[in-house]
Amino acid sequence: RIMRPDDANIAGNVHGGTILKMIEEAGAIISTRHCNSQAGEPCVAALARVERTDFLSPMCIGEVANVSAEITYTSRHSVEVQVNVMSENILTGAKKVTNKATLWYVPLSLKNVNKVLEVPPIQYARKEQEDEGKKRYEEQKLDRLETKQRNGDVILPVINPAEPHTVSYSQSSLIHLVGPSDCTLLGFVHGGVTMKLMDEVAGIVAARHCKTNIVTASVDAINFHEKIKKGCVITVSGRMTFTSNKSMEIEVFVDADPFVDEPRERYRAVSAFFTYVSLSKEGKPLPVPQLLTETEDEKRRFEEGKGRYLQTKAKRQAQMQQAAQQ
Amino acid sequence: RIMRPDDANIAGNVHGGTILKMIEEAGAIISTRHCNSQAGEPCVAALARVERTDFLSPMCIGEVANVSAEITYTSRHSVEVQVNVMSENILTGAKKVTNKATLWYVPLSLKNVNKVLEVPPIQYARKEQEDEGKKRYEEQKLDRLETKQRNGDVILPVINPAEPHTVSYSQSSLIHLVGPSDCTLLGFVHGGVTMKLMDEVAGIVAARHCKTNIVTASVDAINFHEKIKKGCVITVSGRMTFTSNKSMEIEVFVDADPFVDEPRERYRAVSAFFTYVSLSKEGKPLPVPQLLTETEDEKRRFEEGKGRYLQTKAKRQAQMQQAAQQ
Amino acid sequence: RIMRPDDANIAGNVHGGTILKMIEEAGAIISTRHCNSQAGEPCVAALARVERTDFLSPMCIGEVANVSAEITYTSRHSVEVQVNVMSENILTGAKKVTNKATLWYVPLSLKNVNKVLEVPPIQYARKEQEDEGKKRYEEQKLDRLETKQRNGDVILPVINPAEPHTVSYSQSSLIHLVGPSDCTLLGFVHGGVTMKLMDEVAGIVAARHCKTNIVTASVDAINFHEKIKKGCVITVSGRMTFTSNKSMEIEVFVDADPFVDEPRERYRAVSAFFTYVSLSKEGKPLPVPQLLTETEDEKRRFEEGKGRYLQTKAKRQAQMQQAAQQ
Repeated sequence: RIMRPDDANIAGNVHGGTILKMIEEAGAIISTRHCNSQAGEPCVAALARVERTDFLSPMCIGEVANVSAEITYTSRHSVEVQVNVMSENILTGAKKVTNKATLWYVPLSLKNVNKVLEVPPIQYARKEQEDEGKKRYEEQKLDRLETKQRNGDVILPVINPAEPHTVSYSQSSLIHLVGPSDCTLLGFVHGGVTMKLMDEVAGIVAARHCKTNIVTASVDAINFHEKIKKGCVITVSGRMTFTSNKSMEIEVFVDADPFVDEPRERYRAVSAFFTYVSLSKEGKPLPVPQLLTETEDEKRRFEEGKGRYLQTKAKRQAQMQQAAQQ
Repeated sequence: RIMRPDDANIAGNVHGGTILKMIEEAGAIISTRHCNSQAGEPCVAALARVERTDFLSPMCIGEVANVSAEITYTSRHSVEVQVNVMSENILTGAKKVTNKATLWYVPLSLKNVNKVLEVPPIQYARKEQEDEGKKRYEEQKLDRLETKQRNGDVILPVINPAEPHTVSYSQSSLIHLVGPSDCTLLGFVHGGVTMKLMDEVAGIVAARHCKTNIVTASVDAINFHEKIKKGCVITVSGRMTFTSNKSMEIEVFVDADPFVDEPRERYRAVSAFFTYVSLSKEGKPLPVPQLLTETEDEKRRFEEGKGRYLQTKAKRQAQMQQAAQQ
Repeated sequence: RIMRPDDANIAGNVHGGTILKMIEEAGAIISTRHCNSQAGEPCVAALARVERTDFLSPMCIGEVANVSAEITYTSRHSVEVQVNVMSENILTGAKKVTNKATLWYVPLSLKNVNKVLEVPPIQYARKEQEDEGKKRYEEQKLDRLETKQRNGDVILPVINPAEPHTVSYSQSSLIHLVGPSDCTLLGFVHGGVTMKLMDEVAGIVAARHCKTNIVTASVDAINFHEKIKKGCVITVSGRMTFTSNKSMEIEVFVDADPFVDEPRERYRAVSAFFTYVSLSKEGKPLPVPQLLTETEDEKRRFEEGKGRYLQTKAKRQAQMQQAAQQ
């Protein structure tokens, strides 16, 4: 579809959140279709996890987004979907790859929301494809387990006016009441809707920190720990964890508060790390002011962020060397 | 994309206007791409006309709409696009053709909005295809000219409370301020946005008349006489012109009021006839209360509507006989 | 226009904010049109104030909202507009008055945003109409001045988990990045967009306090102290100030943070009091848990809220007696 002013920031760059939402919709369609392809209980595929994804080049207002999706692995109870996004300038015909994302879905019964159904197996062209898929499956399973354990953290609001470039200065949160049009047929929030709100908060944190035009550069793996029901109030909070010379890492939490229907406590539903870069008016990357850490926790999170940054950098260099040798 | 509660009426049927909007977006993308396929001045394709289209089967919330478009004829200054819409139930896998529409676009220069550019010719597989296209082109050209002349009419608001089933009783209008996200790169309203509003007004007229769940059955040729600019206030008015036993015909006008920028009078931008049917809770067609005509004009318009109705009916029967003989 | 699932809460009642947004759109159109009715500099009418308005009866999904607007007074630099909203059930034909609102607009030059233009005078049918209008004009002018002075308050975030029914427990805030589609031609946020967000926050505060289905009962005068520009981040915060047996009063602030373009501090742009009631599943008013005040400020605000409540109650009773005598 054509990208509209609504989808973009004031500099004309499409929000990463809009792209994430399109990716998730494509993933939900193909995996729901696949899970219903055999006779059996009807089901809807629910997003369980999005693997790390890079925003390779910014998309602009007036360009057309082409989204394609393919099922690349099935385990007994989950589906792996690969989604590719291309941006096309229909005036010049130029096409660019914008995103490659990998998503994991789980089929939930339409009759009983808490029942996970079996996934019809797919055929692999080669045995290695199945083996590689299985490896990815085991890895993400492990990673999901780990994130779940790590997750007790809460972003506390700041009372005193904070110094520029501190963590407190830019941290932000929003509340959103989950309405009918945010939800699937089962009455749970679309993963894509949640990701769009997460990107919105992360973008505000980044803009507050560096006061320039900012764009999403990448999103680390996002795990959907728990479903969010229609009628919940969700709080989406973001805080900066790390800055390199030209990038910022922001941690985002989604907490759900099922205050109307059920006598249940607020719970952590989703969490992820977003990386942003700052752009000049000509679209060139700008230096990012260094994050000032104050508390022990902030310093620890900065070091952890640095670890993730160096790891990603090393991985990317290895890939480039590999590509150069081929 | 997946149809959401927002796209549908309270009975779960997707608004004809939502489908028209998707059709127009697909048409605008493919024709803008084609008109920029040769080196030359960059341009944007503007919708000039939509041929009569039937809504063959209702689409429902939760279904996926698949839209495909193809260029079928080019004249020197215009492009004919054929768009097909299929609805797919991803739970059952069932697919149905929902719409086949033909649209005409004209390329406008990005530098000078009033300049119509030349269209790169397409290759036809067979000579007959070109001849048939040319015939369609001539026909629509003639029809556009005629409609433009007919167009002086204004729908006056009703002052006294009207009797049920009269024209005055159900006539309706809405105003809309044209914002940035309604517009193309050139700052003109997307044809699809206009059609969606027209369908909304026609639907209110139909629901007021028969007080049941109603759905769009078909739309007569829609001519876009003049462009509508960002910042205009548009008035979309509808009145019932004719009822058969099981259908209602509603005439819809779009008038634009460029009250801020230009010292120009309100002008008629678009007009069309929509046909609606009334459905029971089980989705079966219901009888429609007969329209009570009061003035001479209303009686004349009723007769004209009857003419269109009988003509369409005759055409359809001829097609069915032809199909049966093949 | 027809009320859709998106416009309503999960019980099917249309958000007060949606109605306020429609009211403001109608007011902006009629006053912009009026201010451009004489030759002179083109201008856009900007919302300056909304008088207290009551939500006389809830509107539901599927109903049609009819909005009509009329200019009732003009001073040299401002326009008073009276807007009426009726809800119509198009299936039964039943109509109800939902709202009567009075709005004040000021014409800003399209060429120079900081220039307030002169308003063409209107003709009054009777001299008294002009006198009464003038009186309303003087009153609101005074009230605007007062509110501006009162306005230093900030809603501080809460750190420790709060007890149910305290002020801290339900207070809430959201951030919103002002995008192109929130804005007028001049690049300032539509008053209606701001009011919709204010109602959203107030609604979440009310729902958190009483954990039931809640609806907007009335909105006190809203003053728009300063314009909010495209690209700002706005923070909308709400806290409960007073509860009677069957109603809750919530104070809402809008603060704007123009962090990208200008080196300017965050400023208070709008503030208002919203009154909510709690409804049972059958739509009957429910008792509201009493607000627990802890600090001196909270106790003071409770007493002030009580004052407003008793005053409104007395006014309404006087009106009813008057009506009964006529």
